[in-house]
Amino acid sequence: MFNKQRLLTPGPTPLPESVRLALARDMIHHRKSDFENIMFSVQDRLHELFGTSSPVLPLACSGTGAMTAAVYSLFRPGETVLVVNAGKFGERWGEIARSRGLKVVILDVEWGQAVEPQKIADMLAARPDISAVLLQLCETSTGVLQPVREIAAIVAKTDALLVVDGISAVGISPCPMDEWKIDCLLTGSQKGLMLPPGLALIALSPRAWQKAESMSPGCFYFNLPRERDSLKKGQTLFTTPVNLIFGLQASLDILLEKGLRDVYAKQWAMTMLVRAGARAIGLEMLAKNDYSWGVTAISLPEGIDGGKLLQVAREKYGVCMAGGQDRLKGKIVRIGHMGWVDWSDCLAALYAIDRSLQLVGGYSAARDYLETAMAAYNLALAGQPGVLPDSAQVRS
Amino acid sequence: MFNKQRLLTPGPTPLPESVRLALARDMIHHRKSDFENIMFSVQDRLHELFGTSSPVLPLACSGTGAMTAAVYSLFRPGETVLVVNAGKFGERWGEIARSRGLKVVILDVEWGQAVEPQKIADMLAARPDISAVLLQLCETSTGVLQPVREIAAIVAKTDALLVVDGISAVGISPCPMDEWKIDCLLTGSQKGLMLPPGLALIALSPRAWQKAESMSPGCFYFNLPRERDSLKKGQTLFTTPVNLIFGLQASLDILLEKGLRDVYAKQWAMTMLVRAGARAIGLEMLAKNDYSWGVTAISLPEGIDGGKLLQVAREKYGVCMAGGQDRLKGKIVRIGHMGWVDWSDCLAALYAIDRSLQLVGGYSAARDYLETAMAAYNLALAGQPGVLPDSAQVRS
Repeated sequence: MFNKQRLLTPGPTPLPESVRLALARDMIHHRKSDFENIMFSVQDRLHELFGTSSPVLPLACSGTGAMTAAVYSLFRPGETVLVVNAGKFGERWGEIARSRGLKVVILDVEWGQAVEPQKIADMLAARPDISAVLLQLCETSTGVLQPVREIAAIVAKTDALLVVDGISAVGISPCPMDEWKIDCLLTGSQKGLMLPPGLALIALSPRAWQKAESMSPGCFYFNLPRERDSLKKGQTLFTTPVNLIFGLQASLDILLEKGLRDVYAKQWAMTMLVRAGARAIGLEMLAKNDYSWGVTAISLPEGIDGGKLLQVAREKYGVCMAGGQDRLKGKIVRIGHMGWVDWSDCLAALYAIDRSLQLVGGYSAARDYLETAMAAYNLALAGQPGVLPDSAQVRS
Repeated sequence: MFNKQRLLTPGPTPLPESVRLALARDMIHHRKSDFENIMFSVQDRLHELFGTSSPVLPLACSGTGAMTAAVYSLFRPGETVLVVNAGKFGERWGEIARSRGLKVVILDVEWGQAVEPQKIADMLAARPDISAVLLQLCETSTGVLQPVREIAAIVAKTDALLVVDGISAVGISPCPMDEWKIDCLLTGSQKGLMLPPGLALIALSPRAWQKAESMSPGCFYFNLPRERDSLKKGQTLFTTPVNLIFGLQASLDILLEKGLRDVYAKQWAMTMLVRAGARAIGLEMLAKNDYSWGVTAISLPEGIDGGKLLQVAREKYGVCMAGGQDRLKGKIVRIGHMGWVDWSDCLAALYAIDRSLQLVGGYSAARDYLETAMAAYNLALAGQPGVLPDSAQVRS
C-alpha cells in the first residue's frame, strides 16, 4: 500500500491520461465519415512519425502480425532473405521467413552487440540471390540499436529490400524512413506510441510497393495493397480497432506537439540517466555501444538470480521491469524507458535495482548513484538533443 | 444538438460504462502473474459463453483474422471445403479458403434465405472428398440465422469438420458448441461482447484440434496449437491486447451476471420489437424466416435511396444504422440490435426510419407502430425466453 505500481517494461508502457480517456470513448461506426476524417488526420501525422510520404497502414494485430504482414506480402516462397540475428526478435524474423517458405541466410551477431554494416555489404556482394535484409532497429531483447542508417545506405545500392522492425524504436529514436531509404518500416502500438497493444503500423517504399503489387500475399488477413486502397477512403480493409485509433490521435497529439526532436532528446537523456545510474551502482550494460534509446539491458553479477531480483523489485518497490529472454534468462534486467515514462520513473527503477541487489545478493548500498544519474540526464538534455549515439559525447 | 448519437449498426456496438472504464485502465505487463490471473478467470467464463470445455483462444485481430486463423490452421492446400454462400460473409469464407489454396465447393443460397440442411447432407454424401463445411451462424449482411444446430447434427455423422463464424451471434443467440457438435466456433469483440473491435475468440473441438496438430499452420501469426500452449500459462503467443482483455472481464460480468438465458431472451424480444415495428410501418423484412436475434435487415420500398435514408436518419435523428452491402447496397437498412442496445434504442431506430421515409420518399407517417413494437417486445419477454425462432409463436 506504500507503493504506486510503476511499469518500466519495454512494452507495454504506461498510458497518458489523454490516451486513457480516448480509449474510453464510446464507439462510433468505422465505415462512416466521422471516423474516416479521424483516419485522415491521423494519417497526416503518421507520415511525420515515420518520416515518409508513403501511406502508413494501421493493422489490427500485434507487432508480430505486422512482421508477418511484411514477410508474407513482400516475398514469394523460395526467395532468399538475409536475417540479422542479434537477439530474440532477430530469431523471430527467421521463423517468420521460414514459415513463408523462404530460404533464410542468418547473419549471427553476439547478443548484446550490433551488426557490422560491412558484413551485410559483403554478404550482399557474395550472394546476389538475396532479395532482402531483415533486421531490428532496436533489438528489444538486448537493448541494442542497430546501425540502420549505415545499413540502409548499403542496401539501397543493391536490388535487395531493407525491412526494418521498428517496434521498440519508432517514436523513441530517429528513423526517418524516406531519408534513410528504408523499404519497409513497421511498429506496434504499445511502445513509443504509449498505447495498449493491438494496433500495428506498417509503411512501404515505392520499390517495396512495386514488389508487393507483383504478387498475391501469403495470408488473407494481411493484404497490404488492399489495405492501401481502403486507407484512401479513410478505412481499413477489415474492421478497424476503433478505440486504438482514438488513442493514437491522443498519443500523436503528445508526441508531435513540440516535435519529435524533443521526444528523442528526452529518450536519449533517459538512456544516459539509466546507464550512468546503473554504472554508479557498479553494474555493466549488456550493450556496450549502439544502445537503444528506449530499453537498457543491465547485466547482473554472477550468482544473482534475475527472476528473484525482479520479483523483489515488483513486490517491495512496485517497479515492474523485464528480465532476459531465452539464453539471457536470469542474467539481465531490462529497464523499459520508453513511452509514458520520465526521469522520476527511471530513478525508481534504479533505486529498486540497488535495493533488490542488497536483499537478493547481500550487496551493500550504492552511494550517490541517483544524483549521478540525474546529472547525466541533465547533461544530456543540455547537450545536443536528437543526435545519434555514435556522435554523442555524454556516454561515459 | 437536440439528438444524442445512437449506434445501431451490427457491430461495432455501443459500450457499457463498466467496459469503457475497464478500457481506460492503466497498462500492466502481460507476462506477469497479475495479468495471467485475469486471463484464467476470463477463460473460465468463456467456456460458458461458448458452451464448450475446449480452450477459447483470444487472438489480437478482427473477426476476419479469426476466420483466417481457422482456415489456415485446419486445412492444407488442396483440400476441398464446402462453403455456404448466403451473403457477404459467406463469400468471405470462400475468398479465405481460396487464398489458402483449397478447392471450394460453393452452396449458393439466395441472400435473405437460410440454407436447407438437407442440401448439405446431400452434398456431403455426393462428395466424400469434402473435408469441412464453412458457414455463418448469423449472416450479418442479410440478418439470417442459419440452422446450425440441424446442420451440425448432419456434419457430425461424417468425417467433415463444421466451422462456424459466430461473429454476429455469440452472446446474442444460443450456440452451445459442445452440445451442438461444432468443430470450430469463432467470434469478434465488437458484437455481442460489447467491446471495441480488435479481439477475436476461437475454439476448436477435440477432432478439430487433432487435425490442427497434424499440420503446420499456413500463417505464422495464426498458430492455434502454440496459442493453446500459451493459454495454459495464462498468456497469448504474441503480445496480448491487454485493455481489451480488461474490457472482456467487464463485459462477461454483465453477460453472465444473470445468465446467458436472460441475454438471449432480451435479444429475442428486441428482434420481435423491431420486426413488429417495421411491419407496422409497412415494411417487409429481408429474412422471412430464420432471422438473426441481433441484426434485422429491412427491405426498402422501390424508389427509396437507402443511402439517403440512412443519412437523414443519422443527421436529423442521431441514429446510425447500416445499409446493404454489395448486391444489397441501397436496397435494405440493417438495424443492429446487439450488444449494449435496449428497447428504447430500437424505438429510436424505428422512429428514425419512419420519419426518414417521409422525408426521403414522401410517405405518410405510420400510426401506432411504436406501441405495436413495444407490445411485441413485452409479449416476447413474457413468453418463452431463449427458445429458437422456429418454435416461437410471436413472429407475426
